[in-house]
Amino acid sequence: MEYIFEIEMQVRDYECDLQGIVNNSVYQNYLEHCRHEFLKFVELDFAELHNQGVDAVVVKAELEYKASLVPNDKFIVKLGITKKGVRFIFNQDIYHKESGKLMVKGKVTSVLTKNRRPILPDIIDEALSKKGLAASS
Amino acid sequence: MEYIFEIEMQVRDYECDLQGIVNNSVYQNYLEHCRHEFLKFVELDFAELHNQGVDAVVVKAELEYKASLVPNDKFIVKLGITKKGVRFIFNQDIYHKESGKLMVKGKVTSVLTKNRRPILPDIIDEALSKKGLAASS
Amino acid sequence: MEYIFEIEMQVRDYECDLQGIVNNSVYQNYLEHCRHEFLKFVELDFAELHNQGVDAVVVKAELEYKASLVPNDKFIVKLGITKKGVRFIFNQDIYHKESGKLMVKGKVTSVLTKNRRPILPDIIDEALSKKGLAASS
Amino acid sequence: MEYIFEIEMQVRDYECDLQGIVNNSVYQNYLEHCRHEFLKFVELDFAELHNQGVDAVVVKAELEYKASLVPNDKFIVKLGITKKGVRFIFNQDIYHKESGKLMVKGKVTSVLTKNRRPILPDIIDEALSKKGLAASS
Repeated sequence: MEYIFEIEMQVRDYECDLQGIVNNSVYQNYLEHCRHEFLKFVELDFAELHNQGVDAVVVKAELEYKASLVPNDKFIVKLGITKKGVRFIFNQDIYHKESGKLMVKGKVTSVLTKNRRPILPDIIDEALSKKGLAASS
Repeated sequence: MEYIFEIEMQVRDYECDLQGIVNNSVYQNYLEHCRHEFLKFVELDFAELHNQGVDAVVVKAELEYKASLVPNDKFIVKLGITKKGVRFIFNQDIYHKESGKLMVKGKVTSVLTKNRRPILPDIIDEALSKKGLAASS
Repeated sequence: MEYIFEIEMQVRDYECDLQGIVNNSVYQNYLEHCRHEFLKFVELDFAELHNQGVDAVVVKAELEYKASLVPNDKFIVKLGITKKGVRFIFNQDIYHKESGKLMVKGKVTSVLTKNRRPILPDIIDEALSKKGLAASS
Repeated sequence: MEYIFEIEMQVRDYECDLQGIVNNSVYQNYLEHCRHEFLKFVELDFAELHNQGVDAVVVKAELEYKASLVPNDKFIVKLGITKKGVRFIFNQDIYHKESGKLMVKGKVTSVLTKNRRPILPDIIDEALSKKGLAASS
């Protein structure tokens, strides 16, 4: 698996909980934001797709928390993509910017639905291929 | 694995995203809230423990999204607990209240730390045992 | 102004920030949830209205923070309603349950829109009147 | 009143609610993030101050919602600062980046506390003055 996309982000204080670290649930926000930015990068838009009845739906999320992000941290969310039948698996890892340390190892499995039913993810395949990219299998 | 604790909750509209369903990250909030209520049930308190330098830290979260909660839904978060060495595994499943349908299957692995270092979870074992409970192994 | 509706809620740990208190923005979630529960009480539904093209839109929010809610606190959100032209003003105050202390004094002004344009709030007037209620003026 | 600081931000899809627009409460997150970035700009740090027992506490927030931010929008949060006794008033306005349109007009009043009691905001005055800035009065 190799990364094909990344974004840089920064911890915001309100994302931290009473332990003074980024709350566990917030990493899913980071991963979602990275996926949606990736979609834009391949010229797809999550909100627009939704308005056309097409939804990218997460069916599974697995997060391994290696170390905690704290206020002021900058970090990089990296993304690779693998295909299994109708499922797309996003490998999404979060690295501390300054130290390069792996903070969270994420794996998010999703399917496309149209009017709530799973469909073949052709639009994603096409969008990837236009950028010279492909999901590994 | 059997459930030893449960709470009832209700979807709040602000937890829903532009797809009109509860956002994926919010289920981690639900699971966390259930775990912390469980701690209170066995007479431990997450915030108080933190003030004593003891933190319950999530090292892994796995969520399978079976179906989406929508506005007005009531749901039950059920919790079972398994022990593996210093790790506690919370099996946390979310059921739609009215239909009884399984919505999310969750597995959250955590460790106790004192001053950021892992410790034996004796205080949890003792707290469970006072209530006549024990983690399965 | 008198209160015509109230709900009881409880602080969830993830709503607290690194100061160990409920984050300022979260009180707006509490107030919104109370307003939407109030709508249900008068047999209107925020999500359903939205699907019909009718949106309740907040045009102004004023919050005075008197004291901070902390983990484990239970609290009551009370609501009164005043009408000014097409505007509805929700007076929403948050009280600490155990002590009865006023924690937040809120005033949320909203209008109804249909397809993004302001409309007369007749459906709210009617819904109130069916319950024997009326907005003060 | 003039602006003395600004940051650029971008809407993230998870910040939008079922109306497809940024949820009202999220603007308080934006405003908070801007204030904390401003503090860093004048070489103060919210999280660090908290660890020293000094907290910047919001006592009042007033937000006028002029227009709604939607997915993909970029926006600028601008900040001016006025002083009234021990109170600092942050005038914080949010502008749509592309159109320059005013989206939200915000006014956030805060005080400094040490061990939960209000103190004179000398450290802020000094920090401002080191940067050649001053709060208007």
